[in-house]
Amino acid sequence: MATRSAENEPPPGVQEVEALWPENPVLARATRGHAVESVHRGAWCAVDAEGALLDGRGAFREPIFVRSAIKCAQALPLLETGAAAHFGFDDGDLALAVSSHDAEPCHVQRAERMLARVGLDESALQCGPQAPGNDEARFALRVEGRKAGRLHNNCSGKHAGFLALARHLGDPAERYLAEDSLAQRHVRAAVRDLARIEDFELTTAIDGCSAPTFRMPLTGLATAFARVTNPSGEAPARRAACERVVAAVRANPVLLAGSAKRLCTDLVRVTEGRLFPKIGAEGVYAVGVPGADFAIAVKMDDGAARGLSAVVVALLERFGHLTPAEAAALGAWRSATLRNWAGATVGTLQVEL
Amino acid sequence: MATRSAENEPPPGVQEVEALWPENPVLARATRGHAVESVHRGAWCAVDAEGALLDGRGAFREPIFVRSAIKCAQALPLLETGAAAHFGFDDGDLALAVSSHDAEPCHVQRAERMLARVGLDESALQCGPQAPGNDEARFALRVEGRKAGRLHNNCSGKHAGFLALARHLGDPAERYLAEDSLAQRHVRAAVRDLARIEDFELTTAIDGCSAPTFRMPLTGLATAFARVTNPSGEAPARRAACERVVAAVRANPVLLAGSAKRLCTDLVRVTEGRLFPKIGAEGVYAVGVPGADFAIAVKMDDGAARGLSAVVVALLERFGHLTPAEAAALGAWRSATLRNWAGATVGTLQVEL
Repeated sequence: MATRSAENEPPPGVQEVEALWPENPVLARATRGHAVESVHRGAWCAVDAEGALLDGRGAFREPIFVRSAIKCAQALPLLETGAAAHFGFDDGDLALAVSSHDAEPCHVQRAERMLARVGLDESALQCGPQAPGNDEARFALRVEGRKAGRLHNNCSGKHAGFLALARHLGDPAERYLAEDSLAQRHVRAAVRDLARIEDFELTTAIDGCSAPTFRMPLTGLATAFARVTNPSGEAPARRAACERVVAAVRANPVLLAGSAKRLCTDLVRVTEGRLFPKIGAEGVYAVGVPGADFAIAVKMDDGAARGLSAVVVALLERFGHLTPAEAAALGAWRSATLRNWAGATVGTLQVEL
Repeated sequence: MATRSAENEPPPGVQEVEALWPENPVLARATRGHAVESVHRGAWCAVDAEGALLDGRGAFREPIFVRSAIKCAQALPLLETGAAAHFGFDDGDLALAVSSHDAEPCHVQRAERMLARVGLDESALQCGPQAPGNDEARFALRVEGRKAGRLHNNCSGKHAGFLALARHLGDPAERYLAEDSLAQRHVRAAVRDLARIEDFELTTAIDGCSAPTFRMPLTGLATAFARVTNPSGEAPARRAACERVVAAVRANPVLLAGSAKRLCTDLVRVTEGRLFPKIGAEGVYAVGVPGADFAIAVKMDDGAARGLSAVVVALLERFGHLTPAEAAALGAWRSATLRNWAGATVGTLQVEL
């Protein structure tokens, strides 16, 4: 950990000041009365499974950190190496491995069980403790007088998957996040290949959960989602792994995120698995459409959720991947009327793609 | 309420698309490893008590909603009309009237007592219910199986003050938020005069608490703070009211905001009342410096807190209003190293004024 941290400290004088995306347009704006109150800038793109650009706005060719949005690609080696089969992981376990979960009992208990199957426990996780995202889970923990642990970290499923991969490949468990471990080299190769980028284009830093996180053009993230959800052109093992991950998420929308107020879960539930979505920290989102040779990716400059969710739903509507009834069912996530504490209409959230 | 809501709906075809502040620079950026991950744009200005611009960046002459940042000016009529004296409000009550509080017991009980002095109770408040901002208060409410009420609304102190003003002036209590009430006409006049703007420059919409909220140039907000904290040029009644409000906040920093993780409270505490700060929703902040003929105001485009707090502290340092020891004590609010859940250094938050 100390070594990786030091490696990621900027050398003296190095500042990538060009990465300020001056060309990124306002994609969402909050109004109050007649006037704009706040705005959210960003970039988006839509691609096919060959990585060909279909449409987009803003600096979508500039590299961004894709954070947890790329977990589906990070999970593929778990299947391709036989680690998942070796440890008897089921579809729920695979869904948790690609999740950013809210630490509800279903998430925490499953992460613990995955670790037990690998012969490990919570102490093997290097993701750090994190309070549950789910209100009820946070309250329950506090009522019991317990502190949040590493199993509650929203990435504990990914880490349990990484540990299974590392042990299966013979890495020492304590080095499962090291970039030169066998496990992380497999993960990096899967991410790079899915995104259709060259190795030199793929840089890393340390994620919120201490895993290596990847930086690539937004088009790379979209391409990875188009290919995971439309893998007919992949080699047989890759194709099978992609199909298994997509099916696992389709069957387990609550394991992907959470039962309350989570766009990822709602998108899978409302479309009955016709969409394959994933959020990443700092305003990142990607959605692949199985069978449609299509995916979108979004990065908001401010890293915040308000603009992001509305932009994602608007893009899915624009490209015909939500029926009017589905769009209506996603009302809480859309550009809409804003109400205050007393229920009065005070403004709107408007999306401009 | 219905009338005011209807008045604030945009007429057909009216969209202030120009209010997108294309010239606002990046004021804060979050880095990860060697690269920029997210950015926060905005505008700031510094003025003297005459409203003369001392410095600034971005669209500081464009109108923005000042929200709760202007509560100190909204409270002046409470003193100037004699309402505060009539109902026996003390300095703590005045601090609560200008606060955006976290609904800790000290806030909720005081708001209830202010209403009782006016002969009213919680049912007179039109601010709507809001869950406490303070974690402990929210937890305690839930353990007791109670729902948050109107007294918990972060603006309940302002509303108790408005009700006192309305009753003292003879307005019916149920019309205390109506823009044509005597109370709100006094409030509007105080805001307009303090900000040194013309009446036509001051537009309104409905705030989160259902009160009229004011839209004015950022320079107007800064001017109001420079004058409230440096009122030597005001008429005697206005000067006395300003001095009383500033002294009330200096003596009651926790009533201004809250005991945990609130920049307003920390700025007053750390400087022992040498600064007079106030946050507003959607990324607004103002700080006046008593005796220094100086104030700053900030509006972040994205309406979010991360960039805002760091920019405010950096501005106060830049203009010499924080000692190095004070700046160090405000470490949690400054541009700084960002750590992840496991405590590893992952990046920085950098301010560029």
